[in-house]
Amino acid sequence: MKNIKFILQYEGTRYDGWQKQGNTENTIQGKLEAVLSRLDGQFVEVHGSGRTDAGVHAYGQTANAKMNTEKNVDEIKDYVNRYLPKDIAVIDAKEVSMRFHSRLLAVSKTYRYRIRTKKDRDVFSRNFVWHLGKNLDLSSMKQGAELLVGEHDFFPFSSMKRGKKSTIRTITSIQIEQVREEVHLIFTGNGFLYHMVRILTGTLVEVGLGERDPKEINDIFLMQDRKRAGQMAPAQGLALMNVFYDKKEE
Amino acid sequence: MKNIKFILQYEGTRYDGWQKQGNTENTIQGKLEAVLSRLDGQFVEVHGSGRTDAGVHAYGQTANAKMNTEKNVDEIKDYVNRYLPKDIAVIDAKEVSMRFHSRLLAVSKTYRYRIRTKKDRDVFSRNFVWHLGKNLDLSSMKQGAELLVGEHDFFPFSSMKRGKKSTIRTITSIQIEQVREEVHLIFTGNGFLYHMVRILTGTLVEVGLGERDPKEINDIFLMQDRKRAGQMAPAQGLALMNVFYDKKEE
Repeated sequence: MKNIKFILQYEGTRYDGWQKQGNTENTIQGKLEAVLSRLDGQFVEVHGSGRTDAGVHAYGQTANAKMNTEKNVDEIKDYVNRYLPKDIAVIDAKEVSMRFHSRLLAVSKTYRYRIRTKKDRDVFSRNFVWHLGKNLDLSSMKQGAELLVGEHDFFPFSSMKRGKKSTIRTITSIQIEQVREEVHLIFTGNGFLYHMVRILTGTLVEVGLGERDPKEINDIFLMQDRKRAGQMAPAQGLALMNVFYDKKEE
Repeated sequence: MKNIKFILQYEGTRYDGWQKQGNTENTIQGKLEAVLSRLDGQFVEVHGSGRTDAGVHAYGQTANAKMNTEKNVDEIKDYVNRYLPKDIAVIDAKEVSMRFHSRLLAVSKTYRYRIRTKKDRDVFSRNFVWHLGKNLDLSSMKQGAELLVGEHDFFPFSSMKRGKKSTIRTITSIQIEQVREEVHLIFTGNGFLYHMVRILTGTLVEVGLGERDPKEINDIFLMQDRKRAGQMAPAQGLALMNVFYDKKEE
């Protein structure tokens, strides 16, 4: 038995997100499990670093799976890439210690959100950007972003139900930059709640459009009222870029 | 009546190419004619600068159409972009003289062919590159390209039937460059025969793989024998980048 760590890229457009769900096999996890199970001759369970929603992409999703195969990691990678659909690929596979777990041991993640600010839509980026079509005031967005960075209870910026699980997370940085006809928001933190990046993005966009004052972010944290947070930005602008681990855990 | 010149972008993946064909409406020309005819309240014929094959893309296809609408060019552009499928867009529309014709008056065109040389396939470029997965010797390809530049009878590098139409064309330049994990071939010339860019690319790739000597290109011109030319490169690596006109013709 060996434990394989995979780094994956996918275009999420065609899929119902990362996570296997009841009846549908149309998920990234489902596709990967099907190919690995065929290779291993028995069911192989794949653990992702976390879910991505339907339509969300990944440049560096991480997953691990325990397998019995005699193949080495390069052979596994080649096999998997041969049989996965063309919009999913393994870009790296390596053997890691048996106690490595891609979700439980992740120490931080980076997400990127792309917003097209130019009025005209663009054919080639259509599945990868939120086509806002309006200019954004980056300096007020950066003021808002500063108020989001740090350790906070991000419950109001999520679609979580209040429960026993902590909704406290730490965002270590939010970079906001103009990249040609797009604004990119790059979020790094120790964990992100359900829909959190998309709601943070929607809130910062309302700030950037001048529809709200960046200081309102303090009120949202204080009141813990989800209705005060912004609209959720659409899925297709979002991509999981990197998942980081302590080197000693691998 | 006015004559409108359009510059178009499209991802060709889902379409049966530019040109309307008998039963199928699944062409770029067909989609554009449908939207313009709806706007104009009568059938509007669209003239493209030339065909692109199924799966071939455009960053700057040119077309023109004569219309009766009272709308100005910005209104026409907005209307068309609202109703065209998301993988086709008008990036520019302007009124030109009634004698402008996008095909008959084109003086030169530029095509780009993208080849992915890295072994691993790539999710995000999958519909836009030929995934060769092998390294290419650029210096021998450039030697071959030099022999192609100039005025020649390109019949053996085409899928044309011998007929009354001239198959003599002039290629003014072929640039070959490594762009990260890809090799790009950029062809500029006064006209390109059916399948010509794809067959030239296939031939130059055989040179770059060391399967044939660049000097064989002289023999192919001399013998005018299609069977001596290389394989046709796949459609999805090709894109029409620009169509050029004499300024005075517009």
